[in-house]
Amino acid sequence: MKIKRLNTQDAGFDAELKALLAFETAQDDSIDQVVANILKDVKSRGDEAVLEYTNRFDKTNAQHLAQLEIPQAELHAALNNLPPAQREALQAAAGRVRSYHEKQVMQSWHYTEADGTLLGQQVTALDRVGLYVPGGKAAYPSSVLMNAIPAKVAGVQELIMVVPTPNGEKNPLVLAAAAVCGVDRVFCIGGAQAVGALAYGTQTVPQVDKIVGPGNAYVAAAKRRVFGVVGIDMVAGPSEILVISDGKSNPDWTAMDLFSQAEHDELAQAILLSPSADFLDQVQASIERQVVDMPRQDIIRTSLQNRGALIQVKDLAEAADISNYIAPEHLELSMDDALSFSQRIKHAGAIFMGRDTCEALGDYCAGPNHVLPTSRTARFSSPLGVYDFQKRSSLIMVSAAGAQTLGKIAATLAYGEGLQAHARSAEYRLKPE
Amino acid sequence: MKIKRLNTQDAGFDAELKALLAFETAQDDSIDQVVANILKDVKSRGDEAVLEYTNRFDKTNAQHLAQLEIPQAELHAALNNLPPAQREALQAAAGRVRSYHEKQVMQSWHYTEADGTLLGQQVTALDRVGLYVPGGKAAYPSSVLMNAIPAKVAGVQELIMVVPTPNGEKNPLVLAAAAVCGVDRVFCIGGAQAVGALAYGTQTVPQVDKIVGPGNAYVAAAKRRVFGVVGIDMVAGPSEILVISDGKSNPDWTAMDLFSQAEHDELAQAILLSPSADFLDQVQASIERQVVDMPRQDIIRTSLQNRGALIQVKDLAEAADISNYIAPEHLELSMDDALSFSQRIKHAGAIFMGRDTCEALGDYCAGPNHVLPTSRTARFSSPLGVYDFQKRSSLIMVSAAGAQTLGKIAATLAYGEGLQAHARSAEYRLKPE
Repeated sequence: MKIKRLNTQDAGFDAELKALLAFETAQDDSIDQVVANILKDVKSRGDEAVLEYTNRFDKTNAQHLAQLEIPQAELHAALNNLPPAQREALQAAAGRVRSYHEKQVMQSWHYTEADGTLLGQQVTALDRVGLYVPGGKAAYPSSVLMNAIPAKVAGVQELIMVVPTPNGEKNPLVLAAAAVCGVDRVFCIGGAQAVGALAYGTQTVPQVDKIVGPGNAYVAAAKRRVFGVVGIDMVAGPSEILVISDGKSNPDWTAMDLFSQAEHDELAQAILLSPSADFLDQVQASIERQVVDMPRQDIIRTSLQNRGALIQVKDLAEAADISNYIAPEHLELSMDDALSFSQRIKHAGAIFMGRDTCEALGDYCAGPNHVLPTSRTARFSSPLGVYDFQKRSSLIMVSAAGAQTLGKIAATLAYGEGLQAHARSAEYRLKPE
Repeated sequence: MKIKRLNTQDAGFDAELKALLAFETAQDDSIDQVVANILKDVKSRGDEAVLEYTNRFDKTNAQHLAQLEIPQAELHAALNNLPPAQREALQAAAGRVRSYHEKQVMQSWHYTEADGTLLGQQVTALDRVGLYVPGGKAAYPSSVLMNAIPAKVAGVQELIMVVPTPNGEKNPLVLAAAAVCGVDRVFCIGGAQAVGALAYGTQTVPQVDKIVGPGNAYVAAAKRRVFGVVGIDMVAGPSEILVISDGKSNPDWTAMDLFSQAEHDELAQAILLSPSADFLDQVQASIERQVVDMPRQDIIRTSLQNRGALIQVKDLAEAADISNYIAPEHLELSMDDALSFSQRIKHAGAIFMGRDTCEALGDYCAGPNHVLPTSRTARFSSPLGVYDFQKRSSLIMVSAAGAQTLGKIAATLAYGEGLQAHARSAEYRLKPE
């Protein structure tokens, strides 16, 4: 298998790295136009439109949208019918994810100044949230956990899940995950029509305040379009891993860690940095040896050949610099004292430290969220968290004394900006001296 | 002046309220196309393209983009040349805004579980941020303070401001505000070309990680398009105020508070809720009486007539419910014990409590940010803050013991999802039992 082999000492390395990372989430105009029409239709015709699109695209045959709601009893039955090992794993993972996210809850705060003026921030939860879950082969119960639990921990009152069921086929693991998370309502709808139903509300589907969860290009385009009417999470690109090894890792482990990213899809990206050329050789050999056993080897091969790389660095300090440029979604630090090294990392979605900490543990059950910023957006964004389902209101209560000092400052600045009503409003609060 | 007068007890009130709030930030396709072309051109030709657009749109005559950078000395000269009262007001406001925002700084955290597994979140600042400041009549120094100070408090290394200078005219208050905030570099460029320069970087303008600040429809469309390449703040709609009065407020003060919002622009919205019909009458009379003195009375009249309303409510509890539906950008609670009442408020950008706390104080100098969620987006979003210039990385360091328990859970779930490399990667960390 031909995987790109780079060396930071080579002329042209910077350009090669840039080319390796280049990925434009092209917005397809034809998809966007289809989505715009569906959204408009759902907005004006509600249930009727959602029902028509669902019956057409998912080959269902419902008469009323209400028939596409899954009752709570069915969710719980799905959970109870799972093989015990799966049910227990799902519950254990949910418990750990919940514990970790409880640490993220933001609290209101305020303080009072010497003159009695009170300032602060009041933190409240969103009222109602929509959770999009893809149907078909990419239906991941872990994704339900990672999106639903933070919302519930934040105190969201009502969590509405939508999941397309092409040909009426339901994924029992996904329904079980919804039961574990306490999802309030589940509708078997998907695509832009489901996003529209959540954003605008219909006779049957309640309007939400924010929509989260992954989806295909139609779902992504629909989320972009309804942004502003409702909140949305980041539109994610292909998944990526960057492994930094000191060269003393087990090459088979490292190769499998790269596979665990590459198997997601052909566009996924797996990159290894090490100062040891020997280790890079060993990983390359291990990749060749192990890939033939992987059920998803076609995807792995395409991903590694087109977007993967084994990069020799001068030393670990240089690896940190490159990592900060890449701002990877997942970063494995496979080295001694990874905790100290993590201090050098400025931009990454999640940092996995030490040789025992493979990304897969974090994907399912370590506790932190697996919804992470992709495509270098870790430079400015964060993992999905409880904070995405809470928001803040500024609190301002100015005392009579405070109004004197602040009123003069505000009036001076307001006159400077030509906003006389602002100035007059502040001046009304001034007491005659 | 004809201002809408509503009563919650009237049939059809809900529909009237909905119509009053209806505001679609229509995305103009022709603007979007112009913007797409400018961005593409700036991305490929860099400085040259930015220079051409700037000379054309702003009627400047620069030969090199570097000529459009304002040296630090010029910023400080602008500050020193201000009338002392203005300079002191600007510095006092900046000091208060800084103190408040320092309370928002997020800290890293982690905890260690019984088996030695460490979990947490590492908080870091964005490296470089772009601040868009509109030119011409809407050039507000207070806007520079409110956008620049949180970024600096967060620890952003480099803050790059862009401000168009049509016909080469610079606003000394804006330059002075940049000096007060410690803005690192200022370029006299604007429009979609400035957004493109910041998002992609050019030979002269460094690439940033996030772009914040208000702008016209071209700037908003450009920000939407570069979102993903860089972070952006919310695209704001027209400004709004909701005043809730118990009927014992001074009607002149309340009228002026409504003006202070209405004077912003014709689309601004000012709404008053009170259980007292008498008080609504008094405010209506005061509006008529006071508006004739206002330099911006044409804007105020248009805004109040088209988008304003005086609404009689059953009681203050009902006012809270309506306020939560509206989710106003600015909410004034003009009543006794406003602090207790604020507990009923779920959705608002900023809550101004007590009769002395007019919005204008918060716009300039109380301390909290004046960049707030508009058009009902306070249902899911927050004031601009230090947290918008920081981001989090998950920290995961699984102990050898932790890898045993977590490895089994992860493998079970991974097999359930058909991701065998994930499972194998977790299983490699299991020790033989």
